Amino acid sequence: MVTSPVVNTYPLASYTFGVKEPKMEKDTSVADRLARMKVNYMKEGMRTSVEGILMVQEHNHPHILLLQIGNTFCKLPGGRLKPGENEIEGLKRKLSSKLAATSPGIQPEWQIGECVATWWRPNFETVMYPYCPPHIAKPKECKKIFLVHLSEREYFAVPKNLKLLAVPLFELYDNVQRYGPVISTIPQQLSRFQFSMMQA
Amino acid sequence: MVTSPVVNTYPLASYTFGVKEPKMEKDTSVADRLARMKVNYMKEGMRTSVEGILMVQEHNHPHILLLQIGNTFCKLPGGRLKPGENEIEGLKRKLSSKLAATSPGIQPEWQIGECVATWWRPNFETVMYPYCPPHIAKPKECKKIFLVHLSEREYFAVPKNLKLLAVPLFELYDNVQRYGPVISTIPQQLSRFQFSMMQA
Ligand SMILES: [Zn+2]
Ligand SMILES: [Zn+2]
Ligand SMILES: [Zn+2]
Ligand SMILES: [Zn+2]
Repeated sequence: MVTSPVVNTYPLASYTFGVKEPKMEKDTSVADRLARMKVNYMKEGMRTSVEGILMVQEHNHPHILLLQIGNTFCKLPGGRLKPGENEIEGLKRKLSSKLAATSPGIQPEWQIGECVATWWRPNFETVMYPYCPPHIAKPKECKKIFLVHLSEREYFAVPKNLKLLAVPLFELYDNVQRYGPVISTIPQQLSRFQFSMMQA
Repeated sequence: MVTSPVVNTYPLASYTFGVKEPKMEKDTSVADRLARMKVNYMKEGMRTSVEGILMVQEHNHPHILLLQIGNTFCKLPGGRLKPGENEIEGLKRKLSSKLAATSPGIQPEWQIGECVATWWRPNFETVMYPYCPPHIAKPKECKKIFLVHLSEREYFAVPKNLKLLAVPLFELYDNVQRYGPVISTIPQQLSRFQFSMMQA
């Protein structure tokens, strides 16, 4: 038989959560965001961004950690790379900025694993596709999503203005209304892995 | 940078298609199918099935090969493993039964690649999930989907009662109405690969 790659998944209760200074969103509206994207594109070319899937388990079912802004919008931790920045180093930097304590001594040693999906933004619009659409020679953004392997214990510091949620795969699946096209199909992207449910 | 695995994709025009004897479906209704599943489960335990994603390119965009039954229903080539059968050998057997010439000399040498998704059927019902749902100790089926790497030239023999279609990823994406939950999210499952568009 073909063996699926195994991902060790620890109970949510084995992690500790604190708070830190708020991380404000750079834009206050979608229009602002797309305008800033356009300005950056002129200066630096295609935007490349990276996001991480951090997994925990509860009642033996895999959950992923999402950052909630306000009352509804959820996103994966991550962000835009600096021009020329390495994807793995950039993702580590973004994860620390979003989720690590300010004091360097207790920062997680992020272990970035498999790339599970790539999404493309063909135009300065909100819509993205899991392929570069035909006849798009100059996509405006390429976003890569990586699995992040967590250790058995970690301390996360969550910005005051955000909430960190552990959402089960069965809640994400087929729920594009609540989580959008990228996050709602994470269960399919992860289905090739075997999750080993570790006990605390 | 992390390099995505590269999949060489050849033009549809470099493949040749013929016909062979019809391969009739074993069941004429969904109810029959689920009843047969139940009988087999009693005898052999959980059903394991395997399906293959065969890729070609047209106008530099990846397409996948689907078998169409009647006027609307599409499926990936594949089928049920025999009890104890190896997944890779079983998928090769199923691909040959569905798509290879009857004379052994011109059969493709199937190269089975990466597992891209696993789907679970918790009950004797049509619905499947890309994870084993919580509290389901005895799922009724586990289906694995593999990427199949095609050579530059192949001869496919298609059963008379089926049509072989090359469907672009942009047609599958977000089209659950037409292709169902498994096939319509293949673009997401493949998005981590880089498709190298080969010329004829
Ligand atoms: Zn839960
Ligand atoms: Zn439970
Ligand atoms: Zn086409
Ligand atoms: Zn075209």
